[in-house]
Amino acid sequence: MSQEVTRTLARWIVGSRLADIPADVRKSGVSSFLNWMGCAVGGSAHETLDRAIAALAPFAGPGQATIIGRREHFDVMHAALLNGMSSHVFDFDDTHLKTIIHPAGPIASAVLAMAEYQPLSGAELLHAFIIGIEVECRIGNAVYPAHYDIGWHITGTAGVFGAAAAVGKMLGLDEQQMTWALGIAGTQSAGFREMFGTMCKSFHPGRAAQNGIASALLAKQNFTSSNRVLEAPRGFAHVMSVSRDFDEITRDLGKVWETALNSYKPFACGIVIHPSIDGCIQLRNEHGLKAEDIAKIDLIVDPLVLELTGKKTPQTGLEGKFSVYHSCAAAIIYGAAGENEYGDDTVRDPRVMTLRDKVEAVAKDDINEDEVYVTITLNDGRVLKKHVEHAIGSIEKPMSREQLVAKFDSLARDVLPVERADALREMCWKMEDLADAGDLARAAAL
Amino acid sequence: MSQEVTRTLARWIVGSRLADIPADVRKSGVSSFLNWMGCAVGGSAHETLDRAIAALAPFAGPGQATIIGRREHFDVMHAALLNGMSSHVFDFDDTHLKTIIHPAGPIASAVLAMAEYQPLSGAELLHAFIIGIEVECRIGNAVYPAHYDIGWHITGTAGVFGAAAAVGKMLGLDEQQMTWALGIAGTQSAGFREMFGTMCKSFHPGRAAQNGIASALLAKQNFTSSNRVLEAPRGFAHVMSVSRDFDEITRDLGKVWETALNSYKPFACGIVIHPSIDGCIQLRNEHGLKAEDIAKIDLIVDPLVLELTGKKTPQTGLEGKFSVYHSCAAAIIYGAAGENEYGDDTVRDPRVMTLRDKVEAVAKDDINEDEVYVTITLNDGRVLKKHVEHAIGSIEKPMSREQLVAKFDSLARDVLPVERADALREMCWKMEDLADAGDLARAAAL
Repeated sequence: MSQEVTRTLARWIVGSRLADIPADVRKSGVSSFLNWMGCAVGGSAHETLDRAIAALAPFAGPGQATIIGRREHFDVMHAALLNGMSSHVFDFDDTHLKTIIHPAGPIASAVLAMAEYQPLSGAELLHAFIIGIEVECRIGNAVYPAHYDIGWHITGTAGVFGAAAAVGKMLGLDEQQMTWALGIAGTQSAGFREMFGTMCKSFHPGRAAQNGIASALLAKQNFTSSNRVLEAPRGFAHVMSVSRDFDEITRDLGKVWETALNSYKPFACGIVIHPSIDGCIQLRNEHGLKAEDIAKIDLIVDPLVLELTGKKTPQTGLEGKFSVYHSCAAAIIYGAAGENEYGDDTVRDPRVMTLRDKVEAVAKDDINEDEVYVTITLNDGRVLKKHVEHAIGSIEKPMSREQLVAKFDSLARDVLPVERADALREMCWKMEDLADAGDLARAAAL
Repeated sequence: MSQEVTRTLARWIVGSRLADIPADVRKSGVSSFLNWMGCAVGGSAHETLDRAIAALAPFAGPGQATIIGRREHFDVMHAALLNGMSSHVFDFDDTHLKTIIHPAGPIASAVLAMAEYQPLSGAELLHAFIIGIEVECRIGNAVYPAHYDIGWHITGTAGVFGAAAAVGKMLGLDEQQMTWALGIAGTQSAGFREMFGTMCKSFHPGRAAQNGIASALLAKQNFTSSNRVLEAPRGFAHVMSVSRDFDEITRDLGKVWETALNSYKPFACGIVIHPSIDGCIQLRNEHGLKAEDIAKIDLIVDPLVLELTGKKTPQTGLEGKFSVYHSCAAAIIYGAAGENEYGDDTVRDPRVMTLRDKVEAVAKDDINEDEVYVTITLNDGRVLKKHVEHAIGSIEKPMSREQLVAKFDSLARDVLPVERADALREMCWKMEDLADAGDLARAAAL
């Protein structure tokens, strides 16, 4: 009970050296950063951003940092908020499958905005980014799934710790300051799953990035907090969860890396629908299916699918992302589930709506989260079956480098001129070689 | 179960008119604002503020708003953060005794900073301020004590709703926007009691003020959130509490006013120690007690006293505020419990420490929160007893206008020149007559 969880974690963060991080973990870090950047550029023109900027710009500080994919420049903390929102607004960013955390949003948004204010090398940025993901995901591991089940949006609640750790590492906090930074972060941990399907969902990782930066900056000035924010009886893991395992935070630090477990979405929606979409697209392509030929689509899915994405009659593109029914219908009709398949028009397309109403999903407890059984009954009586054991994008069936590039391009080229989008992509792949990591942000401006 | 709690509350906020607020409630509002202003001026030179400003000033926006008691001017949201911190840093601000919420901090800090950016009359400011307190305290009533018992610092967690409501009222949000503003606020609700005794405690009301403003500004731009942040199964009252009564939020809106139940502290520490201090000072003055004469001080107190303020050996002035032992010792020696009695030097004074070790406190369940039995045994064998039924500052024994003035003066004159402090005090009393409420902020600048 006298476990010093927070201090142990702070000590590890402060002592970590880039050279200690294995090459495959660094490589995962680079892929995560590239995937995040593509999502942030792609999401930057969303009206969620327009509204947030209209509301907050009059109060923003000096133009220290780039708003990715846009022409505005704001202070570091507003940049982190807005970039964090862009990167999550399509629900297309990375996923730590053990916790359903989207790791990069809170961390990359924080460190990149800070990099323009306090220059550092690309390798140092990558180091801070990986540290942040480790902290965020380890804290998530300690309280998942109980914490998530209560109703907390874990990307926001755990993300703020990771952002504080990453920026604290950049600022060179000592052990006591890092302990405080985690405390200041923890006491701002927030965000309800109730907000899913509204603009507040992408607000969560943005706010986590912004508040994480503030935590590190305050701690650097010796602004005090509890030294035991994680483990205290009135700290994070007790107040915000009904069960917890602190070993998940402190065990094998620097030996086992959560960053290497990060995954990237091929589809622009919640990860739990991916097996269903994957199965539908496979059957569509194998049999040249057309919507008109289909009498019925039956899914056997993990219970989380219905809990998270059970919207039967979504009204907007955003709501469509929380509908396994819409997603499968669009996947059959278009053979894809990118941003275009989640436009308001697509959700209201009578052809999509007709097929959507033919989708039925049944939950079974013994189905894995990345597994599905799809059965499509055709009007001519034929029955087509597909068992997806591991959806594309899962750890077992990861996206290839080519697929990551294609995803990045489809997102970034929608916003930036092609040659600039391509240059940004190449800069991300080579981020470890950059003398000034702020170049990444500047290259992402419109 | 189809209760529309959030929307009902939003509808009431939008429809409220100042003329509908009874005179005694407006009077309580003015007293609350004056008491808040005194605390904010008095606390403004605290090192908590110095450190926060050192950390955050480089990122602040245009100098739209006054930092109370200081020379800096920052954007509205940073001003709200910093003024909210100043007003709570001495733990000397107001208390809504039903919930132990300190109502004014999150609300006044938000509306006053906003008043400098978007001018309004003093009467309109008072109206928004009272609305904010109602929203904050009613939401607190709905989840207290379960929410507080879990470990949430209710001033921060409920305060953010009140700040959003108050600023939303100033901005003229419509019913849907007000519903969203409450949602955006709720998904930022945060703050652990674990932080008590550290600089993060006063950070909570400041952040609540700042985040409440952001919520209202975002909602004004139609930034969406859940429409059911309070009552949804994954909303505030379920996620952040183990029990709840939504009638506390919606019953008798506009008829029963929580603002009229606000109370003001005569002593610069947690309200639960006040009966003990009151009793000690009364015995001291009645018997001319000196520390050297005392063999033992025995207290019979409400259990919350030991839970919240049971620090036996505080090391700093801030920790002294969480020690009933230190507080009683200082009260006997100095006959007061203002900021001076909670200085680091006082806490480490051997004379205070010696007497502190002679204080014993026993909790009994049938003692009220504003009640205490004090028994002082003297070295000559005499035994002095005092039963305080209601501590000074309670609803039953409120501070007089004279006492409020004396408190304001002792705080404000420490920071502002006497004639400026006095002018500010008089301006607060007459706030309803001001054509431009921003004058209150400008008069509070150093």
